[in-house]
Amino acid sequence: MSVLEQAAAARIAAIDLAGATRAEKDAALLLMADRLVERAGDIVAANAVDISTARENGTSEAIIDRLALSPERVAAMADGLRQLAALPDPIGDVVRGSTLANGLELRQVRVPFGVVGMIYEGRPNVTADAAGICLKSGNAALLRGSRSAFSSNAAIVSVLRKAVADAGLPADTIQLLDATTRDSVKELMRARGLVDVLIPRGGADLIRTVVEQSTVPVIETGVGNCHVYVDAAADLEKALAITMNSKTQRNSVCNAAESLLVHTEIADAFLPLVLESLLDAGVTVHGDARVAGFNDAVVAATEADWGTEYLSADISVAVVDSLDDAMDHIRLYGTGHTEAIVSESLGATRRFVAGVDAAAVVVNASTRFTDGGEFGFGAEIGISTQKLHARGPMGLPELTSTKYVVTGNGHTRG
Amino acid sequence: MSVLEQAAAARIAAIDLAGATRAEKDAALLLMADRLVERAGDIVAANAVDISTARENGTSEAIIDRLALSPERVAAMADGLRQLAALPDPIGDVVRGSTLANGLELRQVRVPFGVVGMIYEGRPNVTADAAGICLKSGNAALLRGSRSAFSSNAAIVSVLRKAVADAGLPADTIQLLDATTRDSVKELMRARGLVDVLIPRGGADLIRTVVEQSTVPVIETGVGNCHVYVDAAADLEKALAITMNSKTQRNSVCNAAESLLVHTEIADAFLPLVLESLLDAGVTVHGDARVAGFNDAVVAATEADWGTEYLSADISVAVVDSLDDAMDHIRLYGTGHTEAIVSESLGATRRFVAGVDAAAVVVNASTRFTDGGEFGFGAEIGISTQKLHARGPMGLPELTSTKYVVTGNGHTRG
Repeated sequence: MSVLEQAAAARIAAIDLAGATRAEKDAALLLMADRLVERAGDIVAANAVDISTARENGTSEAIIDRLALSPERVAAMADGLRQLAALPDPIGDVVRGSTLANGLELRQVRVPFGVVGMIYEGRPNVTADAAGICLKSGNAALLRGSRSAFSSNAAIVSVLRKAVADAGLPADTIQLLDATTRDSVKELMRARGLVDVLIPRGGADLIRTVVEQSTVPVIETGVGNCHVYVDAAADLEKALAITMNSKTQRNSVCNAAESLLVHTEIADAFLPLVLESLLDAGVTVHGDARVAGFNDAVVAATEADWGTEYLSADISVAVVDSLDDAMDHIRLYGTGHTEAIVSESLGATRRFVAGVDAAAVVVNASTRFTDGGEFGFGAEIGISTQKLHARGPMGLPELTSTKYVVTGNGHTRG
Repeated sequence: MSVLEQAAAARIAAIDLAGATRAEKDAALLLMADRLVERAGDIVAANAVDISTARENGTSEAIIDRLALSPERVAAMADGLRQLAALPDPIGDVVRGSTLANGLELRQVRVPFGVVGMIYEGRPNVTADAAGICLKSGNAALLRGSRSAFSSNAAIVSVLRKAVADAGLPADTIQLLDATTRDSVKELMRARGLVDVLIPRGGADLIRTVVEQSTVPVIETGVGNCHVYVDAAADLEKALAITMNSKTQRNSVCNAAESLLVHTEIADAFLPLVLESLLDAGVTVHGDARVAGFNDAVVAATEADWGTEYLSADISVAVVDSLDDAMDHIRLYGTGHTEAIVSESLGATRRFVAGVDAAAVVVNASTRFTDGGEFGFGAEIGISTQKLHARGPMGLPELTSTKYVVTGNGHTRG
């Protein structure tokens, strides 16, 4: 089947799914979970094909580890689906409601988008996650995973589709697109009218391509050049803990800090401490001239460093002369993901919160908290860095649209 | 200045505007209103240039009437700005908030988009409306009106910019783009990163072009092929009043009905009545074979009729065999704007409301109620027919994004 045929089938399936009750959707999610565990052997066997191909292609062991599935990892995917079943259903929520002066009853109600397209890279567990989140939010899912995980993804989707059908919902609410050709991505991006929203998850190149070429509305995710700004009025101990946690707790993720800005008045006290800690932790420090003066191990930062999302054990560090300079720097180089200030000054934090435009502005805490799980959403389909529709971590409500229901008794407009 | 230079200036102005209080913005709106009235003579004189050009170009008097400004029409624009000043400010609203298990305080707060681009046709009053709505919601506005109204729009924007500056806000929050060339539309559509959202208002061709070519996120507005479905269990009197009001109260607008679907069981009772009323009101009825049997004045409907937004005194009429057939017809030909059912059956209305996917689903009332003013929003920038971000009439909150503010006391992630 072509992508357009798959999308058309998804569109029809989505009509039934939109009418499914929470009980019906939760029963499907629980059956999907049970079947993944039952069929873990087949899934791991299909994964072995992907692993073997990756080895033949000379893929690094780090990436192979991300790709690899074990019975335990399959069980974790199943647990994710069970957690989704336990979450409230966003569909049918009344977002606002009132009775108008003429007696018309107005309600704005959450409804599914219809058909959601996902383009993603890497780990096959995203396949089960995305399928589950879409199903719970009443959306049919068109999943375009990476070529390197195609055999694994095909096995997972086959199990999930059978479970959905056995639970009495249309199997075509979950479909895997051909990952062996780039054409499937192109067709998906042009399927306006059949696909309601497209969510790319992956590297900056993938996201840029989708944003520029898609006629289907896109929710942009992920690129995070996140800053920690240590204000003149910072508590040094908190500043050190927050910087280290933001940079080193996990450095390959979009909410890790990539840049540290230090107010000049606190530089003498703070920089020696933080540079030593960063360097001890194996982080390469790319610093400006003032930073370099504090430690010989600092590498000279280039202009490119300030705009780089390293996703590695690297950090750029600059001294700034004021809070305004810090905000100007963030406006110039930030990607609108997560920006943190460390300060005990209420005035400084108020100005930073008001003046910095990002999905998340964090006061005296690690950038790593920008996450659907940490925010208590229970499920996350990605972190939006755009301003339209959803901004920041996206949970189930972010995968819905709304409709107005207007109820009268023969009302006409005068 | 090029569009990109104007957009860059808007971006800088938007930073100041985002920090403006409600009091500052309302003072600017009131001054804008006063100045429009004071300078009405200049505006009407500028308008005379557009009118004269339109006459030279052989423009119809109906369109010239839409274009024409009088002191009274300028006063109405000023009143619109005063009404905006009286509306609550959406900026700073806390959309959701909680304290997480670890003590982090999470708040999701409404913030402006930043820079909003508007592409619109026809009447110059839209210029003042759009400028006011954007200012109240904290957004800088890049306004690309029609070439036919360029002289009028230039005069209006000149007055508004001076008023904004005199009120202490940056004049560049309101800018008119060159309407004498199509290049300004093209540049605006490619100004991703400088312009946060683009709202096209106008004909289907304009909207399609923007949706297909823009890399700036778009909010699609307007096309409405709206249906009235008269169910087997309809009250005939309500059905007649609602059909007539939906079609004839004003037929050039997107929420006017373009198509009538009548359940076969009520066709004998209802069609003679409604056809006579429609024909008496000067409406051309494009009917299917069954409809044509009821009245010789019915014109045979072609396949194209079912998908046409007439925006004129025309209506397509079909007999359907069931509620499901009505919903299938609406799915096939509807544009997701407004769909109405007339029925006294709770079961039928429940099924219709659940099964029809549109910005507004209306029960026993006219399609003409889908409107920001009728919904009590106080201001409207357009009616979205897309599912992302905003659906249905868009008021001030729909012109905002959100950001998460996360406040801790040295919190790090474990």
